[in-house]
Amino acid sequence: MKVLITGGLGFIGTNLTAELRRRGYETWACDLTHSDRDYYRRCDIREYRQLDKLLSEQAFDFVYHAAAEYGRWNGEDYYENLWMTNAIGTKHIVRLQEKLRFKMVLFSSAEVYGDYTGTMAESVMDTTPLKQMNDYAMTKWVNEMQVLNSAAMFGTETVRIRLFNVYGPHEHYTPFRGVVPTFIYKALHDQPYTVYRGHKRTFEYVNDVCVTLANISERFKPGEVYNIASEKQYEIKYLSDLILTKLAKDDSSVSYKNAEPFTTKLKRGDFSRARQDLEHACPTSLEEGITRTIRWMRTAYKIPEEVRQVAVR
Amino acid sequence: MKVLITGGLGFIGTNLTAELRRRGYETWACDLTHSDRDYYRRCDIREYRQLDKLLSEQAFDFVYHAAAEYGRWNGEDYYENLWMTNAIGTKHIVRLQEKLRFKMVLFSSAEVYGDYTGTMAESVMDTTPLKQMNDYAMTKWVNEMQVLNSAAMFGTETVRIRLFNVYGPHEHYTPFRGVVPTFIYKALHDQPYTVYRGHKRTFEYVNDVCVTLANISERFKPGEVYNIASEKQYEIKYLSDLILTKLAKDDSSVSYKNAEPFTTKLKRGDFSRARQDLEHACPTSLEEGITRTIRWMRTAYKIPEEVRQVAVR
Repeated sequence: MKVLITGGLGFIGTNLTAELRRRGYETWACDLTHSDRDYYRRCDIREYRQLDKLLSEQAFDFVYHAAAEYGRWNGEDYYENLWMTNAIGTKHIVRLQEKLRFKMVLFSSAEVYGDYTGTMAESVMDTTPLKQMNDYAMTKWVNEMQVLNSAAMFGTETVRIRLFNVYGPHEHYTPFRGVVPTFIYKALHDQPYTVYRGHKRTFEYVNDVCVTLANISERFKPGEVYNIASEKQYEIKYLSDLILTKLAKDDSSVSYKNAEPFTTKLKRGDFSRARQDLEHACPTSLEEGITRTIRWMRTAYKIPEEVRQVAVR
Repeated sequence: MKVLITGGLGFIGTNLTAELRRRGYETWACDLTHSDRDYYRRCDIREYRQLDKLLSEQAFDFVYHAAAEYGRWNGEDYYENLWMTNAIGTKHIVRLQEKLRFKMVLFSSAEVYGDYTGTMAESVMDTTPLKQMNDYAMTKWVNEMQVLNSAAMFGTETVRIRLFNVYGPHEHYTPFRGVVPTFIYKALHDQPYTVYRGHKRTFEYVNDVCVTLANISERFKPGEVYNIASEKQYEIKYLSDLILTKLAKDDSSVSYKNAEPFTTKLKRGDFSRARQDLEHACPTSLEEGITRTIRWMRTAYKIPEEVRQVAVR
């Protein structure tokens, strides 16, 4: 099987490439920049010609469409890139899918549940009116409707996945990233960061998620949509404390604040469908996942444990 | 009062400019091209700098945001322009509204009701889950959420209007226009056209609609949303027959087909809110409106009545 991962240099793309290669697939990746990787092509999905060239030349059986401008605040600050990459770029891919007939996995997000505050089951949008609370969330819901409409009109075959809070190695820190890379990076560099009290989240270790994602290629149900979530809810402060403990640091650089405005206090995803169809599970404990993520981040940012300990003394 | 109409050279923009000037407002327009009009500025709303310059220099009290890539099939064929103008362009305007605090009227569409088949009341999206069936419809719903989120987070003041089937003078024919300009243009030029049987629509004459739109500036309720619809449903074939009768032509150039795929058979809009708050009414009968539209189109395309009659003999 010949597979393409768009956004293949990104956090999930990098991990998914490894998992699909482990399974023996001819796994290609594309992303915005040039790279030294094999089976890789530079391709900006905003540019139809670049996509057309890549997809027409290679005859992929399967496309994991992970390329996207990611995150709520990034989307609010860089909304031009957001709409061009997510809405136009995805429409380009859907148009090419209508012609070339590859199967697709569309990366969506729990953000599509918008202002819904109950347990998020996949069927919520069929039974409950929702409004997305930011442009990033809107683009992801737009993407889902784009593939649904294409399936209805042209018979294209796509599975949608809604990711919750994936974390792990290869997620580089930027000010627009989530709490895990932010807390680890800031703590490693002895920089201040803020912890909002009263928010609870689940955390899914990226290797566990990539096993589930790879399983889709073997158990493909066109038109299906899956929450990729986990069970256990953690206070954000618990996560921060866990990271600080593992780094043998105190919380003197941490500011604590009450509820973050315009952000849900609790996100609970029903993932029974993914468990049943895809054997989705998250066996890696948060403690173990954080240990591995810290180890990767020390390597990525060249902060060896020994040196830190000497510096701390 | 100082007012700007984006998309001011367009069909509704042109008619609305006339109505607002009749009321004595200093009425400016902007659009994609240069023009010989007074109180006019070229401005592509996709380009933040052009918008920022215009809006920051002029201190408008009120912006009628009518600029948009319009129509379902245009949106499917020109989706790059669609998303850039409608999603990014509107976000630019919303960001500038957050800074400059002008009041806004956002032009939305009955297309936001998507796959809903009942009578469309404004509250449908608060009670019923909906999916938009094409990218044009999605952009309009995205625009509504963009202004709702901006109102919630930054206190901006916007009224949304959902237009149904506005027709009348200054709507130039293109292959992406609605049935009224298409049928009149084709019949005037003795070109073939298709009539789908079994579809019913209301038709609102543009001058009636512009009175209602102008009333919003005087009875402005921030956060409100209005259907701008009318009562009487007409078969598409009735419209075609009416036009042919008025042009003294037979239907030998008309093909009749059964239901158009992926298009609702009936669109019924509840406009009681607009009637109550804005004195919305559509006093111009379809017969009278079509007569006036034919008269305008003869002038616009230089097809005088006399010459046609000679040619027919």
